Amino acid sequence: MSRARNRRGAKSIVANFVHRRQLTIEWAYCDPAGIVFNSRFFELFDGGTWALLEAALGVRRHELAAAFDIMGVPLVDARARFIAPVKFGDVVVLESQVSGFRSSSFDVEHRVLIGEVLAAQGRETRVWAVVDKTGRLRPKPLPEEVTARFRTN
Amino acid sequence: MSRARNRRGAKSIVANFVHRRQLTIEWAYCDPAGIVFNSRFFELFDGGTWALLEAALGVRRHELAAAFDIMGVPLVDARARFIAPVKFGDVVVLESQVSGFRSSSFDVEHRVLIGEVLAAQGRETRVWAVVDKTGRLRPKPLPEEVTARFRTN
Amino acid sequence: MSRARNRRGAKSIVANFVHRRQLTIEWAYCDPAGIVFNSRFFELFDGGTWALLEAALGVRRHELAAAFDIMGVPLVDARARFIAPVKFGDVVVLESQVSGFRSSSFDVEHRVLIGEVLAAQGRETRVWAVVDKTGRLRPKPLPEEVTARFRTN
Amino acid sequence: MSRARNRRGAKSIVANFVHRRQLTIEWAYCDPAGIVFNSRFFELFDGGTWALLEAALGVRRHELAAAFDIMGVPLVDARARFIAPVKFGDVVVLESQVSGFRSSSFDVEHRVLIGEVLAAQGRETRVWAVVDKTGRLRPKPLPEEVTARFRTN
Repeated sequence: MSRARNRRGAKSIVANFVHRRQLTIEWAYCDPAGIVFNSRFFELFDGGTWALLEAALGVRRHELAAAFDIMGVPLVDARARFIAPVKFGDVVVLESQVSGFRSSSFDVEHRVLIGEVLAAQGRETRVWAVVDKTGRLRPKPLPEEVTARFRTN
Repeated sequence: MSRARNRRGAKSIVANFVHRRQLTIEWAYCDPAGIVFNSRFFELFDGGTWALLEAALGVRRHELAAAFDIMGVPLVDARARFIAPVKFGDVVVLESQVSGFRSSSFDVEHRVLIGEVLAAQGRETRVWAVVDKTGRLRPKPLPEEVTARFRTN
Repeated sequence: MSRARNRRGAKSIVANFVHRRQLTIEWAYCDPAGIVFNSRFFELFDGGTWALLEAALGVRRHELAAAFDIMGVPLVDARARFIAPVKFGDVVVLESQVSGFRSSSFDVEHRVLIGEVLAAQGRETRVWAVVDKTGRLRPKPLPEEVTARFRTN
Repeated sequence: MSRARNRRGAKSIVANFVHRRQLTIEWAYCDPAGIVFNSRFFELFDGGTWALLEAALGVRRHELAAAFDIMGVPLVDARARFIAPVKFGDVVVLESQVSGFRSSSFDVEHRVLIGEVLAAQGRETRVWAVVDKTGRLRPKPLPEEVTARFRTN
């Protein structure tokens, strides 16, 4: 982690582990305009995040919560830009990468590529969360052992 | 309940309580052919069943399990026939009705109507279920107080 | 329309027409955490936008494109903040409102309320679009007759 | 094709080409009971059918209609039995196979397996369809060149 960045309190840009998944656009994903309906991108992003966590942390997705003694990684913010149409039958690559860790939350960037063309781009903000005694979600500090796994060098 | 039918062990056809809901077909439901994608009908049927249970039993859907000391009403069989296209913007009526009770399961019939035209028809089979000590789902006899609520006369 | 804002080239905050829709959270919308899965909010937002356009413009949703000689109102950007859990059986109000028009695009703000509590908030950016001779989407200036319909005074 | 069966007018049981796809159950597919929501199975079946057609016919899914001069293969009937719970993170195999051709329609059987366990089973009936001059869907005889491609010997 870059000291300079830490001193400024900025996000660390160290999570260079990228998860890539190729997939074919299903009929079920597409709307009457023949393109992927917007909410489906957020579904794909969610799947990308789980696959990324699984790959980086070496824990299967349904065992993640137990392995790290958390409730889960609830989403608090999601956004997407739709740049070029993604159509039925298109073969796309979904790239997912943590773009920054904060003390108890992190951002995941997602890119949907058709060949070299960036067709859609998204970002999720997720919390490393536990449930407190009153049953409410509460952020928990991200352990160094977790964030370290997203650095590839 | 008809004795004749009971003697033959057939389903009782006594659940004449019908739940009707009008809804507008959303863009999100439709596929590149401009018609409702098949899986969305099963979503609508599920919503129809919950609304029917709520209306007949006088218990809100998220309180149903606690009110009757069950785990829920898991689906074990679902089917649909797609008869006429249902399109973006169509105003449809979804009719849901229990078509038969068995000792610990029941069938719900669903009809999607555009005006007088039957556009789709479905049937779900659901179990009145508890979780046993080993954590497995187990059917539980349907109480008479439940089945009686679906008779309108 | 505020002159001050216009001089600064900012968005006009004149679209005070609000569309409200009450709905019950379906089982189908919820995830293993028992709360609405994130992509479902974007589906709800899409439905809110169509209902808003229908109500403000007095044209049924599937006739909108033909009525205004456009291809549609494709989404180019969507975002949401998830503030409080929305659960199975919750009765929510979805409020949808144009928060600003630009020359050929507009933003729609969506709020999901449980009683007085703001549970989720979203924003879509949509383009008033035609298809050009090469088959590509192209923005088209928003007619004054359209934007005027979103002012309630 | 078995002559004996043809004489009886029964379905030919010759389509022994099986398409298999392994997939991990996504969080987005699961409901508050922690299992795959029923409509998602129908989505998976649809994807299985497209992948099967693609593999058997050697034509990419979005080029199928043009390649065979049809409108598509609309679904007229779908059903599923849910036998064992399928949960978040489960790795399943989806097997899809044409179980019978009729003159202008066909059935596709789908099986969802967790290891050796059959967790869900489905069947779709689809029509080989064209659009007639009045804009209505009409069945078209299935060409022998198509049905032959589903035999593996």
